[in-house]
Amino acid sequence: MPNKVEEFNAYRQKMNEKLLSTDNKVIKRIFNLDTNAFSQGHLPEKTKELLGLVASAVLRCDDCIAYHLETAYKNGVSKEEMMETMSIATLVGGTIVIPHLRRAYEFWEALEAQNSTN
Amino acid sequence: MPNKVEEFNAYRQKMNEKLLSTDNKVIKRIFNLDTNAFSQGHLPEKTKELLGLVASAVLRCDDCIAYHLETAYKNGVSKEEMMETMSIATLVGGTIVIPHLRRAYEFWEALEAQNSTN
Amino acid sequence: MPNKVEEFNAYRQKMNEKLLSTDNKVIKRIFNLDTNAFSQGHLPEKTKELLGLVASAVLRCDDCIAYHLETAYKNGVSKEEMMETMSIATLVGGTIVIPHLRRAYEFWEALEAQNSTN
Amino acid sequence: MPNKVEEFNAYRQKMNEKLLSTDNKVIKRIFNLDTNAFSQGHLPEKTKELLGLVASAVLRCDDCIAYHLETAYKNGVSKEEMMETMSIATLVGGTIVIPHLRRAYEFWEALEAQNSTN
Amino acid sequence: MPNKVEEFNAYRQKMNEKLLSTDNKVIKRIFNLDTNAFSQGHLPEKTKELLGLVASAVLRCDDCIAYHLETAYKNGVSKEEMMETMSIATLVGGTIVIPHLRRAYEFWEALEAQNSTN
Amino acid sequence: MPNKVEEFNAYRQKMNEKLLSTDNKVIKRIFNLDTNAFSQGHLPEKTKELLGLVASAVLRCDDCIAYHLETAYKNGVSKEEMMETMSIATLVGGTIVIPHLRRAYEFWEALEAQNSTN
Repeated sequence: MPNKVEEFNAYRQKMNEKLLSTDNKVIKRIFNLDTNAFSQGHLPEKTKELLGLVASAVLRCDDCIAYHLETAYKNGVSKEEMMETMSIATLVGGTIVIPHLRRAYEFWEALEAQNSTN
Repeated sequence: MPNKVEEFNAYRQKMNEKLLSTDNKVIKRIFNLDTNAFSQGHLPEKTKELLGLVASAVLRCDDCIAYHLETAYKNGVSKEEMMETMSIATLVGGTIVIPHLRRAYEFWEALEAQNSTN
Repeated sequence: MPNKVEEFNAYRQKMNEKLLSTDNKVIKRIFNLDTNAFSQGHLPEKTKELLGLVASAVLRCDDCIAYHLETAYKNGVSKEEMMETMSIATLVGGTIVIPHLRRAYEFWEALEAQNSTN
Repeated sequence: MPNKVEEFNAYRQKMNEKLLSTDNKVIKRIFNLDTNAFSQGHLPEKTKELLGLVASAVLRCDDCIAYHLETAYKNGVSKEEMMETMSIATLVGGTIVIPHLRRAYEFWEALEAQNSTN
Repeated sequence: MPNKVEEFNAYRQKMNEKLLSTDNKVIKRIFNLDTNAFSQGHLPEKTKELLGLVASAVLRCDDCIAYHLETAYKNGVSKEEMMETMSIATLVGGTIVIPHLRRAYEFWEALEAQNSTN
Repeated sequence: MPNKVEEFNAYRQKMNEKLLSTDNKVIKRIFNLDTNAFSQGHLPEKTKELLGLVASAVLRCDDCIAYHLETAYKNGVSKEEMMETMSIATLVGGTIVIPHLRRAYEFWEALEAQNSTN
């Protein structure tokens, strides 16, 4: 049975392929930029993933949070570091971030569960 | 089996009727204004629907996007014009718009499917 | 069969317990502040719940709206007062608030249904 | 010498007159709605002004905050009630509301100064 | 004496040059994308400028509004079309857009004044 | 002659003192939390300042950006790291972040100028 992480990734990949199969160059280039912006530069990749996470959290975009949680997890971010990042998001962005924090925590548990069974 | 478009419209219509059955005049007048603002004026209706679509997209309101996708579709907006409008939304509003773009594309496909089978 | 209100509260409580079981003190203190800020002060509790509701509505946070609808309901807010509060949110925050108004009205009906059967 | 309150009101009135002198009926009707929505209804005018204030604060609109501070002041809202309303805005909307809170406090002082010298 | 339009353009150009003189490729490419996205495509340039204007208005970005007002003006958009676009922004984005509408109208007058004296 | 940095800090300090002299405990506690959240924890202080900066930038709060630019500068963040952080903000938050990026760059130059003359 696919867990939350696999479902999220399957839908995301299917729709991204459709979007990139259109003739729209602006969309294609924004997708490319997204890959480049989070690569190692003056700042390490792990820090950049946390920057992407906190930005997604204060803008309250669940799918963006899920995406950056997964890449952060793969970059070795610990649960405590993730929670510290999300606590800054909740302070700066306000208590309206809390529902997204609940779902983020649930997604993080799915990432841990997926990893322990693979 | 109802598709996404029919489900969306059924819920929307049912709840709008309930809202308009209350004694709240401000809500009633905002609903009326909504109809007037998107009617032909100095700008044609099709342009206004694209304005409604891009505003809904940068404000990341899935139901508002779905509503304007349907009215845009009925006004003869092509898939390429819809994608161009959404690409401006994604550039101006940032990559946090992308999850809404994925759902918008899926809804557009449902509009096309509904139309081809009717 | 659990209704919308019970489902919402069950998930909310389960995840809040998990969040508060971590070592993150900032999150714990924000949760405490949330309780204090809505207690009787210079303004009565009922007015504060309406302030929380309108803030949640213009920021378009469905879970926050649901939470404040329930506490407002328990504080004796009438349907007409709730609608008047939501109409100010819709005017100030724009028609993008309308989808949240539809869901708020549905949640209010669930609160009324739960109350009449208990 | 005009104080902050007089400057704000003079600019606001001058531009509103220009906006209402155009042929745009949607704008005219939104301006009318704004007057109606904050009039006494199921909720008293004072409560409605606090609702307008908290909505303006979490949406971080300085001019909207100034407008509702002035009407709240005229409706007998005390400094403590204003601060309690703004503290809910800061908790729900996050620390990004604080710069607006600083300017709101300064505008409130200008309202008090204007009143004591008139 | 430089008017509002010239002041805005001078500051904007000076700072853009500084930003583009750094080694940051993501910023450079976003600036390039901005030029491309608003060029003639499936939709005419004039329509795209109105899309940029309404997106800027609902997101309440004064500088973005000023920029798109100027390019819209140069593309032959009439005052009535501008006002119709801004009225959709005010309805969709709410009365918090009104302060930006006042400043937009003032900037439009500066564009007209600049044009009549050049 | 005071530069931008000194003016910003003087106003900020003066108004914060006024806010903290009221009897509002929620505001006082949010100010305290703000200090704690950005202290060294599982993540180093420098990383937390960048998290605060990117959150402030995507939420488009100029004063919050200025505050985090100054603390980032004091924590040894380089211009390149600041720009990389701001470029992620501009990609995630969209081109509406650009006017804030221009003002951020100007404030950073003021920080450098202040430092070289002290």
